[in-house]
Amino acid sequence: MKILRTHHDLKTWRSGQGEDVGFIPTMGNLHAGHLSLTEESFKNHKASVVSIFVNPTQFGPKDDFNRYPRTLEADCQKISELHQRYPHKEIAVFAPAAIEEVYPEGFSTVIRVPKFDGFLEGALRPGHFDGVATVVYLLFQLVKPKTAYFGKKDYQQYRLVKQMARDLGLPIHVKGMPIIRDAGGLALSSRNQYLSPVEKKDALYLFNTLSHMKKLLANSSDNAPLLKAYAEQEMKNDPRWQYLEVREARRLSTELPKKGKAVILGLLKVAEVRLLDNMETELS
Amino acid sequence: MKILRTHHDLKTWRSGQGEDVGFIPTMGNLHAGHLSLTEESFKNHKASVVSIFVNPTQFGPKDDFNRYPRTLEADCQKISELHQRYPHKEIAVFAPAAIEEVYPEGFSTVIRVPKFDGFLEGALRPGHFDGVATVVYLLFQLVKPKTAYFGKKDYQQYRLVKQMARDLGLPIHVKGMPIIRDAGGLALSSRNQYLSPVEKKDALYLFNTLSHMKKLLANSSDNAPLLKAYAEQEMKNDPRWQYLEVREARRLSTELPKKGKAVILGLLKVAEVRLLDNMETELS
Repeated sequence: MKILRTHHDLKTWRSGQGEDVGFIPTMGNLHAGHLSLTEESFKNHKASVVSIFVNPTQFGPKDDFNRYPRTLEADCQKISELHQRYPHKEIAVFAPAAIEEVYPEGFSTVIRVPKFDGFLEGALRPGHFDGVATVVYLLFQLVKPKTAYFGKKDYQQYRLVKQMARDLGLPIHVKGMPIIRDAGGLALSSRNQYLSPVEKKDALYLFNTLSHMKKLLANSSDNAPLLKAYAEQEMKNDPRWQYLEVREARRLSTELPKKGKAVILGLLKVAEVRLLDNMETELS
Repeated sequence: MKILRTHHDLKTWRSGQGEDVGFIPTMGNLHAGHLSLTEESFKNHKASVVSIFVNPTQFGPKDDFNRYPRTLEADCQKISELHQRYPHKEIAVFAPAAIEEVYPEGFSTVIRVPKFDGFLEGALRPGHFDGVATVVYLLFQLVKPKTAYFGKKDYQQYRLVKQMARDLGLPIHVKGMPIIRDAGGLALSSRNQYLSPVEKKDALYLFNTLSHMKKLLANSSDNAPLLKAYAEQEMKNDPRWQYLEVREARRLSTELPKKGKAVILGLLKVAEVRLLDNMETELS
């Protein structure tokens, strides 16, 4: 396993690989969710790159950039252990030693995807998705992967990156991967570790509510008004909800089609920790 | 000479060319300025593409998008005549038949270059440079040129495109070309034809003022305060000035270095027509 600390090292390593490279962009502090993406990449590609970069431009001034957990050694250990089951595959960890390895000095460009911004996470975190789209573009340029793997827990991010890659003509398949949950149903997240055991139990309310709403929707857009009323009542009763909505899955528009995919998205704040989750469901 | 009306036709044509392609993006209504870029491309490359596309996203709601002159037939005639002097070079005109040939349906990405926005043209035309950066990126993706030629009359645009191409890792040399002027000194522009003969004479005030300021600067940043005072007095006396400034040439910062390039930029409104001009000068 190679650990690459500069964009120069990454380019050198990359030039020795063929086209068949899978890519898992992360902010580190890896859990089973990240590892499921990495394993999928091992299965599908000759070579894989996991990037570990806490990207400053996607954090707002009040966000947790400084206290975001940085655990490079443990992360590399986990990737290395997984790699032992795929010994014939190439793996590199790109862990930039400085911000300038991703954003060169004098860098001054921002990529925005307005259609996926301004609502849900975009409304609550102004500028967040500009940071995401821009850093993903830059990492794509450095890694030049065939396929990039994104967890669907950050659903809006996944759809936005897919749109950006399409719009900018990047020859990269952006693949969304299922949410990994703990035994109770809580979606894995690096931020879960901020929670006490009692708060973790409270956090299950997010999963349980989404599950209940999925049942209420019962695969029919006819039930959309019912679901909307339910969500509004929920949010009124419990101020921990930051949003709770059902949307069409591809464009995240609020209009549900008769047929196709919908997604129920929620953000519950537990002990000041932002917990995101969602559930896709088919309308028929 | 090929005239290509769809992005599909362009891609087909492009796949038959090698790497050595020069590109001149224009909004049509070609004059000697555009033709000087085209001739430079003929001289330097085996194949050249002139795009003719009045890009809606760079016009504001009050701008002249609808009345912007569209003269495709005459434009092709001019390119064809120039081409007769370079008969062994390939030339294609990309004149998209519809906006969707450049912006595919559902397109929703914006490229911004904040450091070059928010002042001069950026302040007067909010969103203008987002439209410019985005369309230039898309055209670069379609044409995949080795070198792209931009007139320095739109100096801020030229610097912004150069920055964008660098930041986004595009393997394209963005080359700025000298302003072409009429006999009196008026910088050529498609918008000059909105002017009556008398107004054209008035418009020379722009060139004459910039020339005078260049003399005042006399290659020394020591004279910057004098120049600033002069410009402020000018703007106070004559409300036709929208801006009149001296800036460092590469980053367009207001701080002049002791040594290096500076640029004096002005925008004079004559009979509601926005006339841009600038002059580069060396500090030593």
